[in-house]
Amino acid sequence: MLQLARRDADFVCVGKQASGPSTPQADINAVLIDLVQRGKRVCRLKGGDPFIFGRGGEEIDALMKAGLPYEVVPGISAANGCAAGSGIPLTHRDISGAVTLVTGHRSAEHRDADWERLAAYRHTLVIYMGAGQLEHICGQLIHFGRAPRTPAALIEHGTTRQQRVIGGTLENIANLAGAAEISSPTLLIVGEVVDRADKLHWLTSAAEMTPERAAGGL
Amino acid sequence: MLQLARRDADFVCVGKQASGPSTPQADINAVLIDLVQRGKRVCRLKGGDPFIFGRGGEEIDALMKAGLPYEVVPGISAANGCAAGSGIPLTHRDISGAVTLVTGHRSAEHRDADWERLAAYRHTLVIYMGAGQLEHICGQLIHFGRAPRTPAALIEHGTTRQQRVIGGTLENIANLAGAAEISSPTLLIVGEVVDRADKLHWLTSAAEMTPERAAGGL
Repeated sequence: MLQLARRDADFVCVGKQASGPSTPQADINAVLIDLVQRGKRVCRLKGGDPFIFGRGGEEIDALMKAGLPYEVVPGISAANGCAAGSGIPLTHRDISGAVTLVTGHRSAEHRDADWERLAAYRHTLVIYMGAGQLEHICGQLIHFGRAPRTPAALIEHGTTRQQRVIGGTLENIANLAGAAEISSPTLLIVGEVVDRADKLHWLTSAAEMTPERAAGGL
Repeated sequence: MLQLARRDADFVCVGKQASGPSTPQADINAVLIDLVQRGKRVCRLKGGDPFIFGRGGEEIDALMKAGLPYEVVPGISAANGCAAGSGIPLTHRDISGAVTLVTGHRSAEHRDADWERLAAYRHTLVIYMGAGQLEHICGQLIHFGRAPRTPAALIEHGTTRQQRVIGGTLENIANLAGAAEISSPTLLIVGEVVDRADKLHWLTSAAEMTPERAAGGL
């Protein structure tokens, strides 16, 4: 995407580096406002969809309060990208009529998700930013009644050449991820739809699977 | 998108016309298989994401059974497009840490959604294909405990120049939609996040709002 920018564009990186510090949201908002007020035409580029765990809502709040015009362009969220890259349909007429996207990240500012309610509804769950909380998340879902053998898949570096897909169940996916030394960014998909991909031989337990190999399953 | 196709491409329409008959899924699968087996390179173009209420799972099942290679490209699902087009963030750190996409369409082949479970979790709900069932859906959500004053927005012809956004609550959105003579395709978004757009003055009750006017709220 960056290569599509005008050659005379300025690039301002406000993204999070692998394990480095991230730019506070307030600072990002301030940069946006400052640049627009200086007459620049600003493209705030995100990896994903701005309105799904992308803080787009906070950024347009800030712009609006500053009286600045903006436009929101939707994007491919990690759920869409990783589903396509791993062959897992998020909904399926015969299997799941709903999908919930939820963050698995817990911190001072994020309360833990309501796993009890989420476990009660037998549909597809897509958990963003859950890499560090796999045992907790799967444990909670099982504790609140989701079957331990519910299929689950973990997609690491989804849609990139480094993509790996680990297939398992709620019961063993955390161990499989540990054995495969899975690291962020990862996406966890839970539900019977994961079995569809398994039937298509897209998933290999703890084995490497690139999008190229996944495409066509051949 | 069609204009980006090769000039010598054949076009085969298998989509649903406004109120006309739709092509049965089995026929679509058969066309895909037939064309690929005749040596064609086929792009199955959908309006949305193939793995979110797009039957992509069924189509790759059919291709796989026929031993044919394929690749899945993710797309902008109606939830992402309509959220961006109406200024409604689907998740928001302060308001909603999860979003569920669910179909409101009921038929012989689709069971009704589990509105009891969906109402229990106070997060964002995005209901696809619910135009004909608005009263039923909102009634069920209220019946199962979601507050009648929960903000709700209906996006008709989302992301197109004909887009209209109706803002209201679970209690009155069906009536407002009736008064505005809303028709398919529509998307219903339910949850506190809808208020964010309201604060941004993107929504006008039963008034016309095009993406151009929505952009920037100016």
